[in-house]
Order: sequence, then C-alpha cells, then structure tokens
Amino acid sequence: MKVGGQWYRTIWVEDDGWTVAIVDQTRLPGAFEVLRLTTLEEAAHAIRSMQVRGAPLIGVAAAYGLCLALRADGSDGALARAIGTLGATRPTAVNLRWALERMRRALHLVPPGERVERAYAQAAAMADQDVSTCRLLGELGLRLLRDRQAARGGPVNVLTHCNAGWLATVDWGTALAPIYLAHEAGVPVHVWVDETRPRNQGLLTAWELAQHGVPHTVIVDNAGGHLMQQGRVDLCLVGTDRVARNGDVANKVGTYLKALAARESGVPFYVAAPSSSIDFRLPEGGAIPIEERDAAELGLDPSVPVLNVAFDVTPARLVTRLITERGVCRPTAAELGRLFPDRLD
Amino acid sequence: MKVGGQWYRTIWVEDDGWTVAIVDQTRLPGAFEVLRLTTLEEAAHAIRSMQVRGAPLIGVAAAYGLCLALRADGSDGALARAIGTLGATRPTAVNLRWALERMRRALHLVPPGERVERAYAQAAAMADQDVSTCRLLGELGLRLLRDRQAARGGPVNVLTHCNAGWLATVDWGTALAPIYLAHEAGVPVHVWVDETRPRNQGLLTAWELAQHGVPHTVIVDNAGGHLMQQGRVDLCLVGTDRVARNGDVANKVGTYLKALAARESGVPFYVAAPSSSIDFRLPEGGAIPIEERDAAELGLDPSVPVLNVAFDVTPARLVTRLITERGVCRPTAAELGRLFPDRLD
Repeated sequence: MKVGGQWYRTIWVEDDGWTVAIVDQTRLPGAFEVLRLTTLEEAAHAIRSMQVRGAPLIGVAAAYGLCLALRADGSDGALARAIGTLGATRPTAVNLRWALERMRRALHLVPPGERVERAYAQAAAMADQDVSTCRLLGELGLRLLRDRQAARGGPVNVLTHCNAGWLATVDWGTALAPIYLAHEAGVPVHVWVDETRPRNQGLLTAWELAQHGVPHTVIVDNAGGHLMQQGRVDLCLVGTDRVARNGDVANKVGTYLKALAARESGVPFYVAAPSSSIDFRLPEGGAIPIEERDAAELGLDPSVPVLNVAFDVTPARLVTRLITERGVCRPTAAELGRLFPDRLD
Repeated sequence: MKVGGQWYRTIWVEDDGWTVAIVDQTRLPGAFEVLRLTTLEEAAHAIRSMQVRGAPLIGVAAAYGLCLALRADGSDGALARAIGTLGATRPTAVNLRWALERMRRALHLVPPGERVERAYAQAAAMADQDVSTCRLLGELGLRLLRDRQAARGGPVNVLTHCNAGWLATVDWGTALAPIYLAHEAGVPVHVWVDETRPRNQGLLTAWELAQHGVPHTVIVDNAGGHLMQQGRVDLCLVGTDRVARNGDVANKVGTYLKALAARESGVPFYVAAPSSSIDFRLPEGGAIPIEERDAAELGLDPSVPVLNVAFDVTPARLVTRLITERGVCRPTAAELGRLFPDRLD
C-alpha cells in the first residue's frame, strides 16, 4: 500500500538477495522506519516484540526467519530448532504454525546445501499468496459493503477493532481490504476505529486509512456499544488470529465485547479469515491458547498490579459471516468443510 | 477515607469557614494535592475539568460552588445565574440538578443577607448526607458480597468500571463502599479494575484500593468479557450518573459492554445508585443526555479524527439489581416507586 505516495509491502527481501526488511510497527504511527533482519534471533525478536504483528504477517515473517536461520546452518537439527524457536514466539495466531509447517514440508527432504535457496523461494511464494488472498477477501467483502450501501444510502459506517490492515499482512489487509477496495470503487465508507488498548493498534489502522484518504474516526474501546445502540454502525468487520473448525473466532481482546453489542443492536458482525488463520484441527475456540503479555504494555506505574490478556474468543453464534478467500460462509464446521474440503484432517 | 494513614473527605470547608477545599483528581494517582476554591468560576471550572468528578461529588461540589457565588452576590439574580452556570458544567449526572434544586429550595425564600450562612449549612448537610448514604449502600452491598463468598468460597472477584469510590463521592464511594466494608469485615475480596479510557479513572480506583490494602488487578477495558467467559468474575459492581425511572442506567462509557458480557456469562450485574442519582422524572434511559468531551482527552496527535463520548446507557434488562440507600431492588419503575414513593411526581 501507499506510504507518502510510494508503494510498500510490510516485508520484503533486500537487493542483496537475503536481508529481510520489515516496517518497524513499534515506531508507527509516529515514524515510518525500515528494519533489516539478518539472523534468526532478530526475526524471532521482531515477532515477539511486535515489530511485525498481525496473524498473516507473522506467518510470513516466521518463514523468512527460517530462511535466515538456514543461512547460518542448513542442517536438519538447525531446521528443527529454528522452527521451535519461531513457533514459540507468539501462541495465539495459528498462522505461525501454518507457515512453519509449510516451510518444513517444503524443506525437510531437500539436501541441506540447497535449503537456503529453496526456503527463500518458498517464503516469497507465501508472501505473494498472502497478497492475492487478501485481495480476494477484499473483493468478497466489497460486495457486502456495496450491498449495505445500496440498501441504506449514505456512507457505510464500519466499526473495526485492532489492526487488520495492510500492516497486519503482506499487503492490502484482511478486514481493511474491502474498505480500501470500496474507497477506490467510489463506495462511500467511514470507519470507526477502536483505539485497541493496550498497544493501540487502532492508531495503526487510523494511520493506514489516513494515508489512503479513507474517512475514519478513532474511538476508545469503550464507545462502540453506545454507537451501535445509536444506529451509527452499519456493520462490524474484524480480522482474526485463529478460527476454530466450528467457527469460534480468536482475535484481539475486546473483539468479543463488540460482537455482543452488535448482536444486541442487530448489526452484522463479519470476520475476514484467510484460510491460513483457520485451525481445522481445533474443534472449538475454548482450546485456543490465549497469550498473556507483559504488564508493562499498559504503561502504568510498576507498583500497580496488572493482568494483560491479549486475545479473546468470540463464539461462532455471534459471528454473522466469515469472509474467506474461497467465499463468504456461516461460521460452522459444515460450511467451512464445504469451502475447504482439502484442509480437513 | 485514608490517604497515607490520614482520614480525608474529597471536599471540605477550610478553617476560615468559607474556602472550599478539594482533592485535585486530575493530579491523581501521581500526586495528592489539595486545591482551594474561592469563587463560582473556580468551582465551575473544577467540575468541568474534572478536578472533582463522580456523580455524587459533583452534586456536593456544585452546592459549595453556589455558596461561593452567594458570598460575592446574594441577590435573587445572582442565585439564578449561579445555578445556571453550575448546572451547565456537566450534562449527564443528574446529581448536579438534584443538588442545585435542593439548594434553590432552601435559599430562595431566605433574605439575601442571610443566604450565605444558610447555603453553607445546607451544603454541609448534603455532604454529610452523601457520606451516610454511601455507608448505607456499603452495608447493603456487603450482604451481597458476603452471600456470594459464602456460596462459592475463596475471594469474591468483583469487576468494576470507572471510579465509583470515595473519590467519586464525599466519602466511602458507591460501588466501592461494599468492597471497603467487606475488606474491613474480613470477607476476602479481589477487584478487577477496568482502566476506563480515555481518562483512566480506573487508576483512581486502583490507587484508592491500594491505600486501603484491598487486593486488585488493573485490566484494559477490552479484557472483562474474556475474564467473565473464563469464570474469573463473580459479580460486576458499578456506580451510575443517572438512573431513569424504568431502571435504565447511564454510567461511564463502556459499562454497557460489561453488562452484556455479564448477562452472557451469567454474572450478576449490580449498580450502586444513591437516590440522588435517580431521575424520577425521566421515563427511560434513551432520553439521558450523553456528554461528548474534548477529543484531546484521548491524547492522540491532533491530526487524528476522534469522537469522545463519555457515557452510555445500560438497559434495565441487563441490570440484576440496583443498590439504593433504602434497599436493594430490581431495576423497574414499580420497585423504585415502592422504595421512593416520596420522590414520584
């Protein structure tokens, strides 16, 4: 997407053919800085510290982290250890496991001496696939926005939580992709942006939207229920870190509260879910590991006792539709199985 | 309540017999500072800028503000103008109107030359009444905490939003009064404290609780739903800025989201509501004016578009019980009428 008029992805390989470049998201929205990763440790740190974040992006970042690890040591042991290290950086998003499994399958039968080249090719293919998947989510979601706009007139008011934009993916975003496409297509859209404490990823969303000229308003996380009661939200649209096979959705903590309010006010609640975020092995959301992060993220005096849970699970019954790259569906095992018969165990 | 071992109210008259002293809540929890108010304008500013805040306290602060106005000019015109100025400082809490009406009734037939003395006496009576009311709310609420503790064992986990503690009243608090009494009575209690963006009144709550040694944990506003799903909240207990006659409850924005989550997880949702916060003239909550405050309160770059709504309305159907100084009741017009027949029109 565009930053100051120039097109960027969130992750790419530098001209030297191996250094991995990322946009440092801990510096945004204040500063746009590119960080260069050259080792496994730097890649793992980037994921853990949320220099890169967003379920789809951390999958691709882990794939590139494995490339960096194999440059240092292409052995079977090193491959296994690097997968272990990268897989342990963040627990909730399933994309990390998905990406590392795809890398392992692509690499474990390849002779160690050829693994680096093969790994970079595979990571690049996954990055490109993420872009095309997000574009597809965008086109499918655009129809929903268009229908809503045609039915109601005026701008479509979309509420989103956290950042599921191009910064959370390689490009386009998941939940924000339909919004960008709607804006380009001349469908009037306005986005209510949840601040998303404690890390304020809503400010990333606001920054992205501002770069592209999409009208938006930031609100505190407390405000969305009131706005829905007042009829000021036409639909909710969020991303996800992991969807269980029954359609339960893990996403940034606070998503569940918005889904409750949406149901109460009759507001449709959509989740943009690339299949890389769908955990077909997991029967239901209760088993999704919920990350607890450092209390310091709240920014309070260290004497104040804090619990910092990073995600919550929205039960499938509160989700109107999942938007996947193969189509829009109800959040049920049956419908997911119909769209993704090849992914069932 | 105690600050560093010394007993304080949030508002009092200095030894000179007329200067009004308040604890400056915009400096807490970082610094405990006493501010001295000497004019109507200073009192109005203190309420508007939230140097004093909390529905019961702003009622009493307005009463003292009127005392200061009458010192400068005891005429009928000055009385009416001061009531107008103070009544316009904050729109949502009905306590402001309640307090000013009581002052007007006590003063309008009094000769201008005697009004100042009478005003201070009336304001002092209202302050004392607030303390005894809060103490009653505490004793009634304590029974609920005790029952819960007896039924479940272990500490009672209470989730609260905003600050409805002694800082929001003259002393004791509304929602926190039962917690202080439980703690004193040896009933084990632990409080989940919502941060309460954008003004972080949860940090006032945490500070109060820390001063009294009550175990507590601060969480972001997004986290409460997840904790309720996990069975880590035994009950919710909040204050209110205005209760409509049908039991609808206006309180700090975000309260509604917690009430939805509480119902979904079968967690009782209690509202501590002194009758000074009950608007018997208002048939239902939809008519409660919802304050919009300055975007700057979010602390974002001024280029970011912001909407800052300060309150929301929790429908009566989501409220398990109201705790009033005359008893605990269901949130219905019939039950409120039974407890307060003298307050009906």
